[in-house]
Amino acid sequence: MEELHIQNTLSGEKERFVPIVEGHVGLYVCGPTVYSDVHLGNVRTFMSFDVIFRYLKFLGYKVRYVRNITDVGHLVGDVDEGEDKIGKKARLENLEPMEVVQRYTNGFHDVMRLFNIQNPSIEPTATAHIIEQIEMTATLINKGLAYEKNGSVYFDVLTYAEHEPYGELSGRKLEDLIHNTRELDGQEDKKNSLDFALWKRAEPEHIMKWNSPWGMGFPGWHLECSVMSRKYLGDTFDIHGGGMDLKFPHHECEIAQHKGAIGMKPVNYWLHTNMLTVNGRKMSKSEGNGFTPEELLTGDHKLLDKGYSAMAVRFFMLMGHYSSTLDFSNTALQAAEKAHQRMMTGWKDLLDIKASDSNEVDVDALRKRCQEAMNDDFNTPVLIGVLFDAVKAVNLVKAGQQTIDEYSKKGLTQLMYDYLFTVMGLREEGSAGTDASLEEGLIQMLIAMRKEARVNKDFALSDGIRDRLAELHVQLKDGPEGTSWSKG
Amino acid sequence: MEELHIQNTLSGEKERFVPIVEGHVGLYVCGPTVYSDVHLGNVRTFMSFDVIFRYLKFLGYKVRYVRNITDVGHLVGDVDEGEDKIGKKARLENLEPMEVVQRYTNGFHDVMRLFNIQNPSIEPTATAHIIEQIEMTATLINKGLAYEKNGSVYFDVLTYAEHEPYGELSGRKLEDLIHNTRELDGQEDKKNSLDFALWKRAEPEHIMKWNSPWGMGFPGWHLECSVMSRKYLGDTFDIHGGGMDLKFPHHECEIAQHKGAIGMKPVNYWLHTNMLTVNGRKMSKSEGNGFTPEELLTGDHKLLDKGYSAMAVRFFMLMGHYSSTLDFSNTALQAAEKAHQRMMTGWKDLLDIKASDSNEVDVDALRKRCQEAMNDDFNTPVLIGVLFDAVKAVNLVKAGQQTIDEYSKKGLTQLMYDYLFTVMGLREEGSAGTDASLEEGLIQMLIAMRKEARVNKDFALSDGIRDRLAELHVQLKDGPEGTSWSKG
Repeated sequence: MEELHIQNTLSGEKERFVPIVEGHVGLYVCGPTVYSDVHLGNVRTFMSFDVIFRYLKFLGYKVRYVRNITDVGHLVGDVDEGEDKIGKKARLENLEPMEVVQRYTNGFHDVMRLFNIQNPSIEPTATAHIIEQIEMTATLINKGLAYEKNGSVYFDVLTYAEHEPYGELSGRKLEDLIHNTRELDGQEDKKNSLDFALWKRAEPEHIMKWNSPWGMGFPGWHLECSVMSRKYLGDTFDIHGGGMDLKFPHHECEIAQHKGAIGMKPVNYWLHTNMLTVNGRKMSKSEGNGFTPEELLTGDHKLLDKGYSAMAVRFFMLMGHYSSTLDFSNTALQAAEKAHQRMMTGWKDLLDIKASDSNEVDVDALRKRCQEAMNDDFNTPVLIGVLFDAVKAVNLVKAGQQTIDEYSKKGLTQLMYDYLFTVMGLREEGSAGTDASLEEGLIQMLIAMRKEARVNKDFALSDGIRDRLAELHVQLKDGPEGTSWSKG
Repeated sequence: MEELHIQNTLSGEKERFVPIVEGHVGLYVCGPTVYSDVHLGNVRTFMSFDVIFRYLKFLGYKVRYVRNITDVGHLVGDVDEGEDKIGKKARLENLEPMEVVQRYTNGFHDVMRLFNIQNPSIEPTATAHIIEQIEMTATLINKGLAYEKNGSVYFDVLTYAEHEPYGELSGRKLEDLIHNTRELDGQEDKKNSLDFALWKRAEPEHIMKWNSPWGMGFPGWHLECSVMSRKYLGDTFDIHGGGMDLKFPHHECEIAQHKGAIGMKPVNYWLHTNMLTVNGRKMSKSEGNGFTPEELLTGDHKLLDKGYSAMAVRFFMLMGHYSSTLDFSNTALQAAEKAHQRMMTGWKDLLDIKASDSNEVDVDALRKRCQEAMNDDFNTPVLIGVLFDAVKAVNLVKAGQQTIDEYSKKGLTQLMYDYLFTVMGLREEGSAGTDASLEEGLIQMLIAMRKEARVNKDFALSDGIRDRLAELHVQLKDGPEGTSWSKG
């Protein structure tokens, strides 16, 4: 596709992307709730939007990318009763809630950095926008779309639905929702079980709370994204993203709050990333098949044969389209690891191949195909396929079966740099500081020399190699499958 | 000193440290204003408090360390008129203020990481505490200690001073302050030029503003630290730190606001870090002698002969006491770099020295001196002197002029580890990821083997080593001073 098209969850159609302000894109993505370690599904979502952020910038857009931090207001079980998640964890650990928030925010940032996920332009927190949340709540009460009961304020879904299509994003029908919503304990303040909290009364033991026109309380979870996206991106903005599990109720509620309060639709394009599975089953902590990002890197989980580098994982994730489920299996991960190595070897080979006077590599065609792949709803798997065609061309040149001239070599180098590093956000591993592969290469060289010395019965040499390595704290171990080494 | 003593700026005395809650310490340090890159003075201040944070934890205290981010409210020139610094920069760059804030917050965190400065327990932002600032302002009005004029609210210093000693921290006298305060434009709303703003009316063009009982506005700079320190550390807490330039008016105003609103003193121990000078003159951008942390690392500044590693800079800064001015000169930096290398070599040698049956190294005495140094107002220069005595002992053992037994070697290793890494926060450079020294060691080993092979006229081996290294892209070069190598 010559122009960027996006699969819009709201319309269910693939639509040409037309920004509201020419040359600018406003992008909002629901960020993490920082009451526990970031999970792998988050990493996939934020990596997907990282590539979208990178590609929009690559196209020349000035992108304002807002990804929030939910540091209050997300209720246990996604119902409006129960304790605030962060407050609960804080009391369990006997910590100030903001100390918990700080710890997990730092941890989240560490993981983002590990996977080379860029910082958003603005990373606002829910607690920094209590005033705006109180204001939007008051507006909704004034418009007759919300009501106060016992110090809490609820959004009146049925009144809203008289004028606006509640369920338009998730495709849910109001009648079905009414029938399927259970009456839960502590929901008796609501006119209708469908209604959701904008503001919750805080019990005296609740730690995170603020004064409001309705007494001490804290905002409902859905509200923060409405006020923060509007504050930084405007009354209607271009793209709103998040994990698929947020479509309902979170994003549906965002639309209702925003339309109710502002009278305009908040977002032109909604994008949702799909879920992770493990060996075909939904990844979840309770099933014991939900490994953490760290476990994936170390291999320290019963379902993992080995660990993978952060860039191999990134490559693996981008081998699937963001809107497809992504299945983690040892086979798929190891295949992706090999593919990633092949790609990076191709990149290194490209820098080394000799240019000649004639040229048989059509770089323009490759570039066109790369752009078409990404313009087709950010299709990274297709993009990777095109880049492997580029690697194939490199290999043919290397084998002397095809020619490339200096101009095309430069063009191909720029192309691969653009898409591997700038757009896909890969990073050459071990390129910072020392070179792990050199260390490995040197030791393998010495192991081979020692083997040859033993074959030649030059035991002075073979023992000398072993002893000198030991001085460098490198231990050799001879086994049935050859010699291995370890540092110690 | 057997127990921790702290030089308290408030009393001017060195006092024994007694925490309010046994085993716990509340520590607040004024953080950066994120409207520009962090400067070297900040780095020194935050590094000083990093060592204090580390040492308190080392002593077994559970420390809640709060270091704020000023993302609004700091007025140009530290007077209460003029544009909010962040709003101004944002308009110059045509950015949303929070986008500026995000960029410089990220940059600040990068620099902190570079210098191995630990994250505080909580890093609250001023904009996340607008409600609390409005509440404290209202309290001060109710108590007759503040007044509203044209949508702004000012603290009434003279009324406060009728009951409390305004100037107690900085040692300034009220009469002198009254005579020396110039009448500035736009200050006509104040009853007295000494009064300072708690809340400022926002002009329509002002971007960062919030609704308040006094109209749209934004908080005065001094207020945020009062509300955030109180919120997270309590009505009176243990230690408040900051750069010496903050003593007046910032910290003086914090005390006045807090005492006025709460009726208690906010802080038991005030600590202030001293200024940086360059070749004896105050470091400042306008003088052109204010290099950035990055310039210090790269050496890319007209006053610098060369660049220094982050850990050499850390060592240099800790060679001075936090309460002394620290003078940057090429001579001093290079001396510190050498001292740092000598210290780290001593540490590595310690791991390698051979223990014997007898012992002449008194580790207990060394540990006692380390603790005494740090207990004496965190005296890192004295600590470093003791650690050099430890290195001296290592060198004597290495030279065979002194003995150490296994028990004392272990004790000395633990001691140096504790103080070099845990307390002083040094980091072994090049130790992350692959080991540069192993790579170097392997190649030197191969160079030595090749030399021996040539002496033995085993040219198959010597050429083999050269060729195999070339395959690993390591080039050997024989010269008059021996063989050197390079990657290529």
